[in-house]
Amino acid sequence: MRRRVREVVLARPVPDGARVEDFEIVERDLPPRTPAGMVHVRPLWLALDPYVPQALRGRHMGAPAPAPGEPLPGECVGIVLSSGVPGFAAGDHVVGHAGWAEEAIVPADRLRNVDPALGTREHLGILGMPGLTAWAGMTQLASVGPDDLVCVDAAAGSVGGTAGQIAKLYGARVAGIAGGPEKTRLVTDVYGFDSCIDYRQGGWETLIPADISLHFENVGQRVLDAVIPRLRAYGQIILCGLAQHYADGSVARLPLGLVMAKRAIVRGLIVYDFEERRDEWIAFAAPHLKEGRLVEAHDVVVGLESAAAQLVSVAGGRTIGRPLVRIAG
Amino acid sequence: MRRRVREVVLARPVPDGARVEDFEIVERDLPPRTPAGMVHVRPLWLALDPYVPQALRGRHMGAPAPAPGEPLPGECVGIVLSSGVPGFAAGDHVVGHAGWAEEAIVPADRLRNVDPALGTREHLGILGMPGLTAWAGMTQLASVGPDDLVCVDAAAGSVGGTAGQIAKLYGARVAGIAGGPEKTRLVTDVYGFDSCIDYRQGGWETLIPADISLHFENVGQRVLDAVIPRLRAYGQIILCGLAQHYADGSVARLPLGLVMAKRAIVRGLIVYDFEERRDEWIAFAAPHLKEGRLVEAHDVVVGLESAAAQLVSVAGGRTIGRPLVRIAG
Repeated sequence: MRRRVREVVLARPVPDGARVEDFEIVERDLPPRTPAGMVHVRPLWLALDPYVPQALRGRHMGAPAPAPGEPLPGECVGIVLSSGVPGFAAGDHVVGHAGWAEEAIVPADRLRNVDPALGTREHLGILGMPGLTAWAGMTQLASVGPDDLVCVDAAAGSVGGTAGQIAKLYGARVAGIAGGPEKTRLVTDVYGFDSCIDYRQGGWETLIPADISLHFENVGQRVLDAVIPRLRAYGQIILCGLAQHYADGSVARLPLGLVMAKRAIVRGLIVYDFEERRDEWIAFAAPHLKEGRLVEAHDVVVGLESAAAQLVSVAGGRTIGRPLVRIAG
Repeated sequence: MRRRVREVVLARPVPDGARVEDFEIVERDLPPRTPAGMVHVRPLWLALDPYVPQALRGRHMGAPAPAPGEPLPGECVGIVLSSGVPGFAAGDHVVGHAGWAEEAIVPADRLRNVDPALGTREHLGILGMPGLTAWAGMTQLASVGPDDLVCVDAAAGSVGGTAGQIAKLYGARVAGIAGGPEKTRLVTDVYGFDSCIDYRQGGWETLIPADISLHFENVGQRVLDAVIPRLRAYGQIILCGLAQHYADGSVARLPLGLVMAKRAIVRGLIVYDFEERRDEWIAFAAPHLKEGRLVEAHDVVVGLESAAAQLVSVAGGRTIGRPLVRIAG
């Protein structure tokens, strides 16, 4: 039985950033049998984390931009419909890259099984790459604890929100930085940070607490320049992302004189280095998630036809919570 | 008995850097009795480490420049002639700041006793602040060991030369960077580094070994920009000094994208934080020094009247080995 499925692709290259009209929906024929080594997946949720707009521009981890018509990047959680490879079976829940598609035939090495008892879209967020990133920064590169005063930039975002919650679970005080009252309320009222600064307010820099011991940076130089003078001696900066610079193509540069004066410890975080420790993170996170001590807000649009608009919102920093597309289920 | 002694001071402020004619030798009367809390010291050796030209310009650790006529910064090792304070006695060897003077009455809190059995000028170098700096970087901020490939900028200098020798003692491979054939020969033939790159040669960047695990920086952005692409993943950069930028007033800034891509660990080193651990360093260093496994070259001028010229040479990077002034003894 041949099946026709819809998929969102680029209509043209978008080196300067995608607009809604740069996407199109195509129909593909899936083969009647799933080939060996491949898995037939029905995505349920697609996550459009902030790296996705950059990947479409060819600005993520050195990978080339997807060509027009090619499957697009973005993790999804889905159900296996049929499998041509041991280790995956119909009905399994999987996470991986399957394009922005109703259904797709995907190489098995792009997928991993997940436990549906722990959640569905949670595997894209707290239990997925954003959560693993936050955990790696807070507990593997740093070793957050009760003596820490943690500052988290992009605190309302996928990674930052979880990073601050992890720090709270370890007994630290946590201040967030986010843009606009909706986001700052999310950070304090839902994620439970001790405070959150709105960087769109004049004089926001003066509100940054002094004596920060651990700063988690996702955006770029503007916040770093304000935070470093307020760092504790031997305070640590985890560089997790430089979204501001990915977006505008500028180069983030760290003032070394201040780093020296503060004896600061600056470290780069690449989540892919921690893939093998995902189970450790999930074992820690799952009970906290179940009992509501780790939470996440979602910014959901429904249907593949809304994916392009959601992508543009992500690129513009207008989503609040983890940006998802509900595809099926 | 009143004594007249000679002392080198500034004739005028030198915000743009000192020339020889900016110094003058004055004569001072010392009081007949050493006041309570003070120590009467006869300096034997004066060290003009690279921070001294910067301190004269008011560009070191936020301290103001010495005013014309005031005692000048620079550590010396000397002999106590008389003391007005318990803990110091005539004949003691001491290290501290006594100005560039034949003799001086110095507050006791600017001095510390040293063991003359371990050496004299060695207390200004390997056993002094430069050695402590090198040790703190290699063993306290980093933890150098046999798996390390260490790169040391300003390898012929006071701190760099010792840093590389410490790394060798811990079993690491060590590459130096220095300017000119005399300095590079010193680094390999006397200090025993495995190699040394002459940054005055065209294409020097291509000679930097790949896979550096620990880089010790004393100069500034130019070398850093060349080293970071050759850093091992999770490689460490110890920022010990930014001499190039102190000299020209520019701001050193590190490209954060590369720091992230390399998962680099960038740390600032301030030697004053490690004063309390000096005995630990001396206990380690003394036997190596005695048996010739830690060595240092000296660039010696004789007499206070040569101090100004030596200072200008230090500021211009023209001294080879630790810059000293032989004052007496």
